[in-house]
Amino acid sequence: MSVLIVGSTALDSIKTPKAENPRLLGGSASHAAVAASFFSPVKLVGVVGDDFPKKYIQLYKKHRVDLQGLQILPGKTFHWSGEYEVNMNNRRTLLTELGVFETFTPTLPRAHQNSQFVLLANIAPSLQSHVLNQMERPKFVAADTMDLWLNIALADLLKLLKRLDLFVLNDSEAHMLTKQDNMFSAIQKIHKLGPKYVIIKKGSHGSVLSSPKGFFICPAYPLHKVVDPTGAGDSFVGGMMGHLASARGSVDDNIRRAMVYGSVVASFCCEGFGLTRTTMVKRSDIEKRVRELEKLTRF
Amino acid sequence: MSVLIVGSTALDSIKTPKAENPRLLGGSASHAAVAASFFSPVKLVGVVGDDFPKKYIQLYKKHRVDLQGLQILPGKTFHWSGEYEVNMNNRRTLLTELGVFETFTPTLPRAHQNSQFVLLANIAPSLQSHVLNQMERPKFVAADTMDLWLNIALADLLKLLKRLDLFVLNDSEAHMLTKQDNMFSAIQKIHKLGPKYVIIKKGSHGSVLSSPKGFFICPAYPLHKVVDPTGAGDSFVGGMMGHLASARGSVDDNIRRAMVYGSVVASFCCEGFGLTRTTMVKRSDIEKRVRELEKLTRF
Repeated sequence: MSVLIVGSTALDSIKTPKAENPRLLGGSASHAAVAASFFSPVKLVGVVGDDFPKKYIQLYKKHRVDLQGLQILPGKTFHWSGEYEVNMNNRRTLLTELGVFETFTPTLPRAHQNSQFVLLANIAPSLQSHVLNQMERPKFVAADTMDLWLNIALADLLKLLKRLDLFVLNDSEAHMLTKQDNMFSAIQKIHKLGPKYVIIKKGSHGSVLSSPKGFFICPAYPLHKVVDPTGAGDSFVGGMMGHLASARGSVDDNIRRAMVYGSVVASFCCEGFGLTRTTMVKRSDIEKRVRELEKLTRF
Repeated sequence: MSVLIVGSTALDSIKTPKAENPRLLGGSASHAAVAASFFSPVKLVGVVGDDFPKKYIQLYKKHRVDLQGLQILPGKTFHWSGEYEVNMNNRRTLLTELGVFETFTPTLPRAHQNSQFVLLANIAPSLQSHVLNQMERPKFVAADTMDLWLNIALADLLKLLKRLDLFVLNDSEAHMLTKQDNMFSAIQKIHKLGPKYVIIKKGSHGSVLSSPKGFFICPAYPLHKVVDPTGAGDSFVGGMMGHLASARGSVDDNIRRAMVYGSVVASFCCEGFGLTRTTMVKRSDIEKRVRELEKLTRF
């Protein structure tokens, strides 16, 4: 089955202690769409300006991403610029130019409205809800978020949470949202806000799923070198949703393995700037790391 | 087979945001010995003063810990007092009274010198080496450490490392020792310092083993409530060494499972002050959590 993915489509200028890379293809939806495309057909919903490089359109197409829902408007593409510290864990934003993203209203083409698997990648929760309003009867709806929305759009996010099957957030965002230090207590509070499935992302420490069938401790693929972690969380959730949509059987039967696949795609994402490494990956490379993770965690 | 454990034997006064507990049984060797005792006979080497409460001698004996190597000297038992912050991750030392520990020289009874499994729990590396000097031909020698020794006794520690099979340290200590941000790079540097086996402890994120047979990602048992994490690392390594000594076959065949058992004992340790929870645990409680961890990590 295909996955509908809405989120940001951007140009990222990323500075690390070792290099500087201007105007890479970025944004939550770009990372999630490429990650999902290894497993399922993807329908992308987003907006770019008329300055958006043609090579990036080609790159989406190479991954067979359906671009019917990608608006190309007069103006500038959303541009984010950020800098990572030496340990690659902390980053600071140098510049945010919203461009055409400032007035973005995601509109679903008719053919997208009956999608079964929906990923509301990180954008304003009001826009995530706006997409859901246009859907007929999706089977499984997941959303990601970021600290910004917890700070400036909490009411919108709380409304959205009631409509989700799965909410994905990182450990510090879980703490911000629930004020709970203990992960179990945080997860319990999030379930009460709506979603039956909650995933807490912990970066290089992996992730944890809480679901109707219990908990799952999902490993991160250990990396010898992290080049640029931008988009790793989006790749994780994109890869996971792509794999989930491709698998037969129930979500409960498949979500653990789907998370492992997401984790592996995220590991490739970290090995290059922007999407440069991810877009070089073959399905067999992914399968190899999944098998390695099986060995690395077996006891 | 039995495990010889040398380390500190102390009285710990522990303050957390919710409670204050004076003069609990503590010290690296106490935690490690009780943890190991669930799986193998334990020989303890340490020192206490003549103020050491009889109830704690009884507690060791309840766990069938061989106390031939425990010196009881005139003077005061090592007393440590510390305070945890709200999130239970950061602690600060309020008071350290070394007492008889100041001049401690671990002397092995004749019967201990041919021990096969040796755990040099956290004490000064010169004392850890002094114990090794008295051993005949141990089969597997593991050592733990702490940031203090990296700061004030690095030369001694580097000498010790050449004589170890396994070195256990936490992630921040690995960074201090190697100046490497990446875990793989840190581990490679530590292997070059001597030990064939390296374990990096990551608290509630579990631990990672690097061994001649490759890597293992060991999960932490997820806890609903952490009461007092003091001694969790000692319990982990003690439980692991106890399990390793109890298992048939090679270290390579057994060390992953041994780590999981250590991880489970450490989880119990965190659920009570000092050793209060650990000493209530039955073997069947441990087996139950090991089975749960199997389910929590399977995909």
